Amino acid sequence: MGDPAGVGPEIIVQSLHEKKITDLCRPIVVGDLDVMRKACEITNIDLAVRSTTDPLNTQYDYRTMNVIDLNNVDIDTLDYGKISAMAGHAAFESIKKVIDLALEKKVDATVTAPIHKESLNIAGHHFSGHTEIYAHFTRSKDVAMLLVDGNFRVIHVTTHVPLRKACDLVKKERVLKVIKLLYDACRMFGIDKPKVAVTGLNPHASDGGLFGYEEEKEIQPAIHEAQRMGIDVYGPLPADTVFSQVAGGVYDGCVAMYHDQGHIPFKMLGFVWDADKKTWGKIQGVNITLGLPIIRTSVDHGTAFDKAGKGTADPTSMIHAIEYAIKMAAKKWSGTL
Amino acid sequence: MGDPAGVGPEIIVQSLHEKKITDLCRPIVVGDLDVMRKACEITNIDLAVRSTTDPLNTQYDYRTMNVIDLNNVDIDTLDYGKISAMAGHAAFESIKKVIDLALEKKVDATVTAPIHKESLNIAGHHFSGHTEIYAHFTRSKDVAMLLVDGNFRVIHVTTHVPLRKACDLVKKERVLKVIKLLYDACRMFGIDKPKVAVTGLNPHASDGGLFGYEEEKEIQPAIHEAQRMGIDVYGPLPADTVFSQVAGGVYDGCVAMYHDQGHIPFKMLGFVWDADKKTWGKIQGVNITLGLPIIRTSVDHGTAFDKAGKGTADPTSMIHAIEYAIKMAAKKWSGTL
Repeated sequence: MGDPAGVGPEIIVQSLHEKKITDLCRPIVVGDLDVMRKACEITNIDLAVRSTTDPLNTQYDYRTMNVIDLNNVDIDTLDYGKISAMAGHAAFESIKKVIDLALEKKVDATVTAPIHKESLNIAGHHFSGHTEIYAHFTRSKDVAMLLVDGNFRVIHVTTHVPLRKACDLVKKERVLKVIKLLYDACRMFGIDKPKVAVTGLNPHASDGGLFGYEEEKEIQPAIHEAQRMGIDVYGPLPADTVFSQVAGGVYDGCVAMYHDQGHIPFKMLGFVWDADKKTWGKIQGVNITLGLPIIRTSVDHGTAFDKAGKGTADPTSMIHAIEYAIKMAAKKWSGTL
Repeated sequence: MGDPAGVGPEIIVQSLHEKKITDLCRPIVVGDLDVMRKACEITNIDLAVRSTTDPLNTQYDYRTMNVIDLNNVDIDTLDYGKISAMAGHAAFESIKKVIDLALEKKVDATVTAPIHKESLNIAGHHFSGHTEIYAHFTRSKDVAMLLVDGNFRVIHVTTHVPLRKACDLVKKERVLKVIKLLYDACRMFGIDKPKVAVTGLNPHASDGGLFGYEEEKEIQPAIHEAQRMGIDVYGPLPADTVFSQVAGGVYDGCVAMYHDQGHIPFKMLGFVWDADKKTWGKIQGVNITLGLPIIRTSVDHGTAFDKAGKGTADPTSMIHAIEYAIKMAAKKWSGTL
């Protein structure tokens, strides 16, 4: 469900109203029944909303939205677009519940809607985001964030750490791990022999050692090792030109060394500012956590408090996130990987 | 002239053949006469090529290209698309000569064509690029690289240093200096009250101190100081979204903390890969060195050895670079700044 005071519930009902989605999967919402009913009203979407408990014993049809009702939001006091402990706690409980369902193999994949870190915090749940919650409850140590927008795919060696610390964390073992995660993910998306790029850490990928040593000492050895394993991988490449090449289809995906190195090109591509309306005109892209024992995809935007409760949010990113979850679950289930 | 074995001479003659350019300025090429003649042949451009020595005592008309002939290339042995000491030395001498002409106030502005660092080096000139040569011969300590593509403008606090060193160099004084350079440049481009953005160094601009301290300790104080000076400046802003906003016109320009932070969004915007031809389909953007006593603009691409000598290079970036030099010289000359 995500944060009930954000746009999450609205983009979920809009997405589950798409027949192309319900044709491909049996969706179940984990959250609060009243919030989901209200989201249908707000978006003017005609779906029956029904409470259920066990995904394996639920009837699915495309005119009905099944909700595992955690009954943790008082709809009368819910304030759209506002930070609150009630909303933060409700968001947290839905995440914890989908993780449990996935670990118990009662669902094949999980998709998350945006949460608000401050609401989460004042509710007493001190995590910096979904990824950390997933890593914690699945006891996963080697997770990595993959961003996908069409054929543009970028995975990160590090994310939410200071830039100085990110430099320290560029280590051969981690770089190799992340190359493999990207390679496996591309195969899961149906790319038979993925062509993978790896950036350098320093400008011009250090220009042969002129500006930094991490390329030679850590990144190059990881690439050689991956090549020995049969992965078609190139680098370390200068980060300022490689992403235009990824966007142009030269590579199926790219390994970025730190948060902004991967997020800047991704958002230059998918985030378009509407100067007239003074808001984001288009926001697209899917955020996928790799390295977990379960499948987790997500929208790549926030709670958009300015739009919440108005029925104006764009569900594109959520629809794509669900489609990716389906694609990955199908591959996993078919035993191809 | 740039490196004679690269595309520089070709894009110069194509640009000087544009009447909109010769209507606005009196161009003079510094380089080798034979190379420039050959460039006209290669590009099939009908310009008379004439040798001259003093820009102040030269006749200008749009059918004639005036060249200060350094006579330092043997056209018979010049190998297009190849590294050589002869080409590197010729490129170096033309740069040194235009700097002298500008310092002697014999020209109002200088524009540079691409050079090849390896050719420069084997010719015994150990500089990492134009910027360093200009800084050296004009004895300038506080230069900064500004990239411009339409209304997208990004200036860099640091450029060709290891990323760890770039973190160390994010200091209040330098950040303030660079904010002012961007502000003055925007005014030179005709923007009356420029709106300036400043990025953070760390992901999410440190998210209130969670991932790093440079925002609070160095960047924020520089922004406050600039605001006290009357500059309309905002930040530190998360680098992963601010550039989409700059592209969308929210800000007239942005201060980036390090090379790739500014170069990645700039090249995502201006560099388009042509998947069919397997080469860059479009490369646009102008590179301007600020903080010099003279005006210097440049193309923002390299020597493109694969295209050199073929007459297929695109002069767009060179035309824009000349237009910017004219614009800046006109403002400087009019005494507006």
